[in-house]
Amino acid sequence: MTRRTTIVEVAELAGVSISSVSRVLNGIPARKGTEEKVRSAAAQLGYTPDATGRALKLGSSLQVAFAVDDIGNPVYTEMMQGVEEGMSGSGARLVVASTGHDKHDLLSLVQSLSRGYADALVISPLQRTPELVQALLDAPVPVVVIGDLGPDVPLDVVRTDSRRGVVLAHEHLVASGRRRIAFVNGPTDTSPGRARLEGFQTAVATSGAAGPVIQASGFTVTAGEEAWAQLEALGPRHRPDAVLAANDLLALGVMRAALNAGRRLPRQLGVVGIDDIQFARIFSPSLTSVSLQARERGRLAAELLLERIATPGTPARTRFVAPELVVRESSRSATDAALGQSS
Amino acid sequence: MTRRTTIVEVAELAGVSISSVSRVLNGIPARKGTEEKVRSAAAQLGYTPDATGRALKLGSSLQVAFAVDDIGNPVYTEMMQGVEEGMSGSGARLVVASTGHDKHDLLSLVQSLSRGYADALVISPLQRTPELVQALLDAPVPVVVIGDLGPDVPLDVVRTDSRRGVVLAHEHLVASGRRRIAFVNGPTDTSPGRARLEGFQTAVATSGAAGPVIQASGFTVTAGEEAWAQLEALGPRHRPDAVLAANDLLALGVMRAALNAGRRLPRQLGVVGIDDIQFARIFSPSLTSVSLQARERGRLAAELLLERIATPGTPARTRFVAPELVVRESSRSATDAALGQSS
Repeated sequence: MTRRTTIVEVAELAGVSISSVSRVLNGIPARKGTEEKVRSAAAQLGYTPDATGRALKLGSSLQVAFAVDDIGNPVYTEMMQGVEEGMSGSGARLVVASTGHDKHDLLSLVQSLSRGYADALVISPLQRTPELVQALLDAPVPVVVIGDLGPDVPLDVVRTDSRRGVVLAHEHLVASGRRRIAFVNGPTDTSPGRARLEGFQTAVATSGAAGPVIQASGFTVTAGEEAWAQLEALGPRHRPDAVLAANDLLALGVMRAALNAGRRLPRQLGVVGIDDIQFARIFSPSLTSVSLQARERGRLAAELLLERIATPGTPARTRFVAPELVVRESSRSATDAALGQSS
Repeated sequence: MTRRTTIVEVAELAGVSISSVSRVLNGIPARKGTEEKVRSAAAQLGYTPDATGRALKLGSSLQVAFAVDDIGNPVYTEMMQGVEEGMSGSGARLVVASTGHDKHDLLSLVQSLSRGYADALVISPLQRTPELVQALLDAPVPVVVIGDLGPDVPLDVVRTDSRRGVVLAHEHLVASGRRRIAFVNGPTDTSPGRARLEGFQTAVATSGAAGPVIQASGFTVTAGEEAWAQLEALGPRHRPDAVLAANDLLALGVMRAALNAGRRLPRQLGVVGIDDIQFARIFSPSLTSVSLQARERGRLAAELLLERIATPGTPARTRFVAPELVVRESSRSATDAALGQSS
C-alpha cells in the first residue's frame, strides 16, 4: 500500500492552517489567496480528501450545532424549530449551544469545531466582532449565519431587516393616534440593539412622534419591567402614550409593570414588540408585534446548509426574509380601546 | 515499548460490551455481575485505563449534553440555566439536544454517546421505556437523570414529587372556594402525565371537589386552548369553576381561550398551573402555579455530575426537591375577585 499524503503536509506546503485546507477541499468559501495556495499545494502533492471518511462524517449521523446567545428567549427556540424543520428527513441531529452573551464563549465554541464538536454550524450571534467573523471564516465545517455579518463576508447568511421592522411598528402606532412614542431598546453594543435604534431614529425623523429612549439592561422581561420604572420616573409631563419595545420580552415586561402601576392597556398606553413570539398572542391584552420570521429564517438556514453539504463549492449566498406587522389588542387606538371592553 | 492491553481485550475476556468496561473503569455504577467480571478481567490482563487520555477528555473542554423532549417549553430552558449555573467555573460546556417526543431520537442520542458525542449527560425524559433505561445504564459516560426512573436503577437521579404538587394545587383551589375543579392533563403515556393524574385522583378522593378530566394533545399552549374548547362543549351544567392544568403552558392556553370566550378570571374561573415558568408571573391575571423548582433540579444535577467526575465510583445517589405553591391572581377566591378590580 502506498502511503497517502496527509492534510498536514498540504497545509505545510501551502503555508496555511490545517482548517483552511479542510475548508477549501470541502468546498467552503475562503479568501481567494488561501484557496489558490491550497489547491496548488494539493495538486503538487497529489492529495485527495478521504471521500469515505467524509461521507461517513456527513452521513446519517451528521451533527449540526445551533449556537445562540440566549436560548431562554423563545424567539431562539422558534428559530431552532425552524432549523429542525429544514433538516427533517436529512438524518441530521441538532444540538444547541447557548453561549450566554459571552463573546469568548462563542469564539471558543466556534474554534472547538475543529476538534470534531459538530459537522456543521448554524449561528445567530448578538454581537459581531472581527474575531468572531475570522473564526467563522476559519471554521473547518460548513457555517450558516442568521443575522447581519456586514458586507463582503463570504459566508452563507440569512438575514432580515429589523430597522424596517421598527419603522413598521412606529408607523402603526402613529396611525393609531399615538404621539409620544417611547422606545425601550436592548443594549446597543449588540447588532440588534444598534439596528433597532437606527430604525427608531429613522421613523421619528419622518413622523416627529418621539418619546423618551430607554436603553434596558438586556432583552429580557425583567429589563422591560425596569425600563417601565425609568419611564415612570420621568414624571407625568414626559409620560409616553405608547411604548415601542425592541423585542417581545421587553414589551411583555413593560406591559406587566404598567398593569401593576394601574395603567389601562391599550387605552392609556399602546405597546408594540418585535419578534412575535408565541406568548405575544396569548398575553392579555394580546401583544401587537413585528414578526422577523424566526422560524422561517431557521428553516432557510438549514436549507442553505444542506445544499452546501450536498454541493460543496457553491458560492456564498444570502437569503432575505421581510418583517411583518401582526396587529393585536395592545396597540388598538386610544379611541377604539375606550369604547371596547378590555381596556 | 511493551504492548499495552486494550479495552477490547478486557471486554472479550469479561464477555461484556466495550461500553460496560468503560463504565466500570470510569467508576460509573453498573450491574454487580458486570462490575465483577470487568474488574477480574482487567486485573488478569493487567489493564489500566489511559489516565492521560481520560484527563484530557474530562479536562477544560468537558462537554455535557442536556437532553430534553421539548426545549420549546420554558421550564426546560430554566432547568438548563440551572445546569449551567451548577457547572459554572468547571470549564464544562453545555449543549442541548431536543429530541421532540420521539423515543427513537432519544435512544439514538444516548447511544451516540459512545461515539464521543459528549463526555457526560444530563437527561430529563418525558417517557421512561425499558430500552431507554437500559441505554442509560450502558452509557459509557457519567449520566444524571432529572425525573423518575423507578426504583433500584443504579443511576444518579434528581427528582421531585409532582403528585404532591397537584395535590397542593387542588387543596389551594378548594380552600379558595372552588368546587367543580376540572383537570387538564397532558398525554398520559408520559411519566409526568401519569403522575399528575394520580395526584388529581388522590386529591379528589379527599375533597370530593371533582370536575371533568381532559387529556390534552400535548403539554403546550395550543393544547390548552383546545382543552378549553372541550370543556366548553360539555355545556353549562358541567362547567367547572376552576381548572387545574398539568403544566403552565396548558394553563396559559386555557386562560387565553377562556378570556376569548368572555369569561372573567379569576371571578368566574380560577386557574392553577404547574412549573412556575417565568411567564406565569407576568401573564394578566398572573398565574398561580406549583413550582417544581426546575432551575434547582438542574443545578443539583450538575453538582451530582461534577462530583461523579471528580470521584468516580461513588454509589448512585438521589436528590429530592419539594414542590412549592406560588399563589397569584388567577386563583383568588371568587368572593375576593368579585370585590377586586382586575376581574
